[in-house]
Amino acid sequence: MLPNNQQVTTMMNITGAGAVAYPSATVANVVCGFDILGFALNEPCDELAVYLSDEPGVHIINNDDYDLPTEAEKNVSGAALLALLDETPDVKGLTLVSKKIIKPGSGIGSSAASAAGAVVAANHLLDNRFSKDDLVRFAMFGEKVASGVKHADNIAPCIFGGVTLIRSIHPLDIVSIEAPPLHVTVVHPQIEVRTADARQILRQNVLLRDAIRQWGNIAGLVAGFIKGDYDLIGRSLEDVIIEPVRSILIPGFDEVKKLSKEAGALGGGISGSGPSIFMLSKDAETAKQVSLAMEQVYTRIGIDFHTHVTSINTEGVRVRSVEKL
Amino acid sequence: MLPNNQQVTTMMNITGAGAVAYPSATVANVVCGFDILGFALNEPCDELAVYLSDEPGVHIINNDDYDLPTEAEKNVSGAALLALLDETPDVKGLTLVSKKIIKPGSGIGSSAASAAGAVVAANHLLDNRFSKDDLVRFAMFGEKVASGVKHADNIAPCIFGGVTLIRSIHPLDIVSIEAPPLHVTVVHPQIEVRTADARQILRQNVLLRDAIRQWGNIAGLVAGFIKGDYDLIGRSLEDVIIEPVRSILIPGFDEVKKLSKEAGALGGGISGSGPSIFMLSKDAETAKQVSLAMEQVYTRIGIDFHTHVTSINTEGVRVRSVEKL
Repeated sequence: MLPNNQQVTTMMNITGAGAVAYPSATVANVVCGFDILGFALNEPCDELAVYLSDEPGVHIINNDDYDLPTEAEKNVSGAALLALLDETPDVKGLTLVSKKIIKPGSGIGSSAASAAGAVVAANHLLDNRFSKDDLVRFAMFGEKVASGVKHADNIAPCIFGGVTLIRSIHPLDIVSIEAPPLHVTVVHPQIEVRTADARQILRQNVLLRDAIRQWGNIAGLVAGFIKGDYDLIGRSLEDVIIEPVRSILIPGFDEVKKLSKEAGALGGGISGSGPSIFMLSKDAETAKQVSLAMEQVYTRIGIDFHTHVTSINTEGVRVRSVEKL
Repeated sequence: MLPNNQQVTTMMNITGAGAVAYPSATVANVVCGFDILGFALNEPCDELAVYLSDEPGVHIINNDDYDLPTEAEKNVSGAALLALLDETPDVKGLTLVSKKIIKPGSGIGSSAASAAGAVVAANHLLDNRFSKDDLVRFAMFGEKVASGVKHADNIAPCIFGGVTLIRSIHPLDIVSIEAPPLHVTVVHPQIEVRTADARQILRQNVLLRDAIRQWGNIAGLVAGFIKGDYDLIGRSLEDVIIEPVRSILIPGFDEVKKLSKEAGALGGGISGSGPSIFMLSKDAETAKQVSLAMEQVYTRIGIDFHTHVTSINTEGVRVRSVEKL
């Protein structure tokens, strides 16, 4: 039995104001943009409430069934909040009430949402004293807990919204890429692909010829987004380096891609390191048709799945104040 | 002693109309955009006149001192015109009078200008029946004569003007990239770097890590151009794959780059496969200061050089009709 808000307040000696953030799922490693390009979805979103507390440190209450660690250092949101607390000597403690909606391990940025949502909510409480770049920096400590790597592929689009380029991690250089309206279909086949495994099967060397083709495509994709040229976006959604290796970990991948394109999708590929697959479409009706195609594949193969039919979230993490409980 | 126009007319039995094209020098392999990104300069330009002729085939008259082959199949302009003639059964013959200004072997697209200028002039005579994509296709036959490879890195920007992305060669996919006003300084140290040698020293394999950094930079560069964000352009002008290898063929390269940036350049690198080096600047005065820095380096080293202080040509090949002589 999960605690209700009143019980939480009593348990945690919450005395201060609160803010609730709704960080969204994100797609990273956008086809030819491996490690550098991601975008935010309008749904699903987690619900993370952060309160100022008289108890020092970060206290975590899970308000869901995922049984995630509550020790701050081992918790994705907690590690991000600890990084933020390090730069806010005037704040005694923070209490987080976390309700995960985005399924961990799905490949649509569940851990990034946990990390980003927590620091966005905290920053809202602190009158937005930190920049978005700062928040990305804090949230990356959460990603380190989740995957061992401080990457910003999901965090940057989650916090900035829209399509974001992470041109460089050291120094952090995040560039918002304008894009025309885009509808997104995601299918999450219920299999496990560990990020570490997905990373390990990548070759450390690639052919220069393939790399050139890849950077031609990423250049085309960025140009297509900013110009609002759907055809160019579609032509550029090609990955000759990562997808051929990683897609073998995802049963049905080739068929999903083929049928999605036949249903009208511009293109797509593996979301993050999988197992989710995303497809971009010009309109909502096509995105719906694409979901039917995806469902057909996994129904036939006999693998459970979830689909999301949504669109690109251009505003970043929604956040609002809540009354002191 | 070179022939004058009247002598040319008599020699070649020119009976038809003529057109003169002024194809410009171009910069290919723009830093992180190896093999995919180029831009056109406002100067230097060649001067190529093409006339309809009663003599079948392509006839070439060189009106300069470079002693280039006059046999059409072995001449860059000639090969391009032959490709065009293949698709114009109604045209009997073409006569080209070529005056090269762009020094062959300088790394600023001399052969591309020969090929592009010839087909643009011919197309003008033929009421522009061919698209720019067609003209690129024809002109690539000229590049094959010049370097053995049918590449479009210089031809595409020469014909389209501005900054052009060659997303793919097969099929040909050329994308014009909008850019803010940019001033360009080029230094051509008078040494020989053969394109074939420059290509041969490249490793066929690259580290995935480096490739990722490169495609982050090309994505940033394209975004910077289209957004008109000079700082982002500057930050993205980084090449971790080609330049470290090829720049060793160009004495003074590192110093030119360092002093150019100190003089205010946004950044730059090897033009084409060298030996020319280009730098981009926000304004004409900076571009001039950059040329002084470049001159200082080669004067000190004791290598002869030419510099060009110019800007990006956004209109492509200028062309005009000429009276039947």
